[in-house]
Amino acid sequence: MPGALDGIRVIDATQMISGPVATRILADQGADVIKLETPRGDLVRYMGVERGGVSATFVTSNRNKRSLALDLKQPEALRWLLRLVATADVFVQNFRPGAATRLGIGEEALRAVRQDLLYVSISGFGERGPFAHKRVYDPVVQALSGLAAIQADRESGRPRMIRLIVPDKLTALTAAQAITAALFARERGAGGQHLRLSMLDATVAFLWPEGMAGHTWLGKKRRGDSARFAQDLVFETRDGYITVGAVSDDEWRGLCRAIDKLEWLEDERFATPASRIVHAGARLELLQQVLGAAGSAHWLARFEAEDVPCAPVLDRETLLEHPQIIENALVVEGEHPTGGPLRQARPPEQLDRTPSALRRPAPGLGEHSDEVLTELGADAKTRARLRETGAMV
Amino acid sequence: MPGALDGIRVIDATQMISGPVATRILADQGADVIKLETPRGDLVRYMGVERGGVSATFVTSNRNKRSLALDLKQPEALRWLLRLVATADVFVQNFRPGAATRLGIGEEALRAVRQDLLYVSISGFGERGPFAHKRVYDPVVQALSGLAAIQADRESGRPRMIRLIVPDKLTALTAAQAITAALFARERGAGGQHLRLSMLDATVAFLWPEGMAGHTWLGKKRRGDSARFAQDLVFETRDGYITVGAVSDDEWRGLCRAIDKLEWLEDERFATPASRIVHAGARLELLQQVLGAAGSAHWLARFEAEDVPCAPVLDRETLLEHPQIIENALVVEGEHPTGGPLRQARPPEQLDRTPSALRRPAPGLGEHSDEVLTELGADAKTRARLRETGAMV
Repeated sequence: MPGALDGIRVIDATQMISGPVATRILADQGADVIKLETPRGDLVRYMGVERGGVSATFVTSNRNKRSLALDLKQPEALRWLLRLVATADVFVQNFRPGAATRLGIGEEALRAVRQDLLYVSISGFGERGPFAHKRVYDPVVQALSGLAAIQADRESGRPRMIRLIVPDKLTALTAAQAITAALFARERGAGGQHLRLSMLDATVAFLWPEGMAGHTWLGKKRRGDSARFAQDLVFETRDGYITVGAVSDDEWRGLCRAIDKLEWLEDERFATPASRIVHAGARLELLQQVLGAAGSAHWLARFEAEDVPCAPVLDRETLLEHPQIIENALVVEGEHPTGGPLRQARPPEQLDRTPSALRRPAPGLGEHSDEVLTELGADAKTRARLRETGAMV
Repeated sequence: MPGALDGIRVIDATQMISGPVATRILADQGADVIKLETPRGDLVRYMGVERGGVSATFVTSNRNKRSLALDLKQPEALRWLLRLVATADVFVQNFRPGAATRLGIGEEALRAVRQDLLYVSISGFGERGPFAHKRVYDPVVQALSGLAAIQADRESGRPRMIRLIVPDKLTALTAAQAITAALFARERGAGGQHLRLSMLDATVAFLWPEGMAGHTWLGKKRRGDSARFAQDLVFETRDGYITVGAVSDDEWRGLCRAIDKLEWLEDERFATPASRIVHAGARLELLQQVLGAAGSAHWLARFEAEDVPCAPVLDRETLLEHPQIIENALVVEGEHPTGGPLRQARPPEQLDRTPSALRRPAPGLGEHSDEVLTELGADAKTRARLRETGAMV
């Protein structure tokens, strides 16, 4: 069955993570995503856990795409790109502001060949302002967005990074959603448009609902860094770590029964959801004392029997073997032409009539240059010349 | 100008965060989102930083929606809901698996009144398997997905939670994107369908590209927890904290110039991007020693002059006053009818022809019950009876 975005063509001139993961989501849903690379290729090809000349991060961020490698500084290469854009629905770039126009692939140049194009600009910080021209990496956005401060060490106050490139990847999700919305609008007559998104905006907007809850109401003393949703619910048992939590009165009663502490039900500090939040410190410390006395499996079974939300803390090894992950058939094995056998997560969304799917492996650099140019009408002689001059790889 | 999803009607029966934030994204883009609540209302109304009877998290997660409060256990309320569904494009629920069907709002019942409905089920863990029936909160998914283990304390190995409800909110983004893709497909003739998404799947798929890079290639010794992208690039200066990083050779040269350590350019441990990763520990320690000797503004200006990616670590107070945030006009002030003046992040995506926008404040419980039922043809007498019997609030 074709995916939800079958029939849509995306030209993706982005590198690194925020752009490539955005278009991979579209590719998983059936869009024909043509990854436009320089003759050197996307840097992520060479970053991280490599096999067969390609990195693990590259293959999972660029599956389902075709690769076209052009040197846009050569006029003939740029002309072929414009021919390609004339057949496309979406063009995505994440150069620093102004660079795309200098390369000849700004909005105006592309709209001249495809009037209803959705032109997408992903930036680090926005297109104007003191940071607009700066280079961006994920930690820079974590620092600037407040994310590193939120994660600060409780004792020393030293900020800490999240050990995942969260800003890059949630920018990707945000971009994929907005691109899809703009395609929907175009289908209903809105025409082409320009979608702009910065990593900084995407990150601050993402953390707002609870992360900025203390800064939402105006004209009221601010609550510093109290984060209601953010208690560190990790408990050490005799043989590992678990999480367990009780929000409603029902769950609290279940928790007290599960650990044989019915006397806590009489403790007025813990009598209501609100008072349990006020006395969270004492509550979590008491709970830790109890849970240290037995193993994880014991406690999880007790909590489970009382319908109290709980789980073991899994690491990346045990995650792969967990029965729920296996039941969900979330992790699928495949084969990369040069890297060999691999496993990855399937697209998480399950659409029963237009399923997202793993259709083809991540491409080699320029693997589809000939194929794409042939589709555009370039004959063998033309393609040979482009290769000889280095305009195409 | 209308938003990209103008003309789409969404009935949102979800509570808490994953569902409500998903439909808020659609509402920001112009969809008519009707929030279906029980007579008690979404629990998030009462959780967190309250003013005027409503929490900050609720108002920023439910803006641009209308609220209809019905007691679906009363047959007349359920009949009116079915009439409403007959006018809708999307129905979203995040009850535990099976509960929606027991309430009379399973897929089959709703499809009987609206054949091409997009029926969306958001679950914690999936619809089958050992965790399917369990209650879910964000920390449970952080524990189960490997997220808490990735964030573990480096010395003690103790897992740590991220202090934001990341799984809930990235499930929301994933759901909003997939819903929009399914609406696009319907527009092109795919009909209605059932979209299923679990928080566990969304989280593991999200962390995969770099978070599971050491577990992607099969048949190779695994690299434990080495996370290439995940060095903690926080440095303490004389008066605060900054982040700075250099990936390419260019950036590394700029960094050495900025801190007057040209001799590091001769150090063979730091000669290539790959060797700089191998010797990251030594490199970061040396850099910390240098950066402790002066203040943040001094170093940031030096790095800036050399085009080295860098930023101050901002907390939530300073974030609001940062010139780039102000330039982006990211934070907008408004007024909530009961809570009063507030500020929040605008939708991060900027679409120039179908702009996402803040159109109306988060609704009071049942604020639009009369309005919505009137639109469906209920007369004053009927509405009064529904209120009297408690079928509607």
